Amino acid sequence: MILDCVFCKIVGGELPCYSVYNDMFAIAFLDIAPITKGHTLVLPRVHVKSLSELKKDEAAGLIFAVQRVSSGIMESVYPEGLNIFINQGEVAGQVVPHLHVHVVPRTTGDGLKFVTPRFEMSESDFKKLAKKITKAINV
Amino acid sequence: MILDCVFCKIVGGELPCYSVYNDMFAIAFLDIAPITKGHTLVLPRVHVKSLSELKKDEAAGLIFAVQRVSSGIMESVYPEGLNIFINQGEVAGQVVPHLHVHVVPRTTGDGLKFVTPRFEMSESDFKKLAKKITKAINV
Repeated sequence: MILDCVFCKIVGGELPCYSVYNDMFAIAFLDIAPITKGHTLVLPRVHVKSLSELKKDEAAGLIFAVQRVSSGIMESVYPEGLNIFINQGEVAGQVVPHLHVHVVPRTTGDGLKFVTPRFEMSESDFKKLAKKITKAINV
Repeated sequence: MILDCVFCKIVGGELPCYSVYNDMFAIAFLDIAPITKGHTLVLPRVHVKSLSELKKDEAAGLIFAVQRVSSGIMESVYPEGLNIFINQGEVAGQVVPHLHVHVVPRTTGDGLKFVTPRFEMSESDFKKLAKKITKAINV
């Protein structure tokens, strides 16, 4: 629990939210500035900034909650699809530094767009990079 | 295993990939049309289209792999942050209908942008919607 973290305050019941789900590992509530109708945040009770900091059971608990929330949204808001995402770090759009998963219902013409560049790489670039990442994962 | 699924073929070793990780539940490889350098896909070995279809141990296995891959990318590509996301359904940008998690390294000025609309809701709209989603989750 971090004293000045707005999400820790919601987890602890000190601040209100439009709750949709909670269990021993995670809570979920409506985003108050929704991108689309039904935009929901799922977060671990424990305060961490990034996914890798979660212990195995905490990560499993979080993904279980995301599964429950995703199904619930599909069966109540009836979108055509979902974007499920974590923005990690300010550069990636993380505003509150308490890990949270966005579940955003998608419908044709809803206005959400991803402007995606392409990073050009040669086959040898790919091979070198794959080796480098593999090595870092297995340290 | 689905015969005409390109990701099932990669899982089964019938098609090549720039592999960075694999275990009993998940595999990870470089996206061949990377948004940014180090863009990696993490996917369950089992063929499902959406996250909610995974069994509890499969979902836990997938998120564990995403944690490993995320850390590995941070420690080898050295980005400032990450976007970690699932596009579920064509409307959300899912091209291959085999669930996969994108791990996209982010750096200031990399050109990736999210154009996000805002869905306007009153307090009473929020309350009604939260009730509806909660009910669907608890069915």
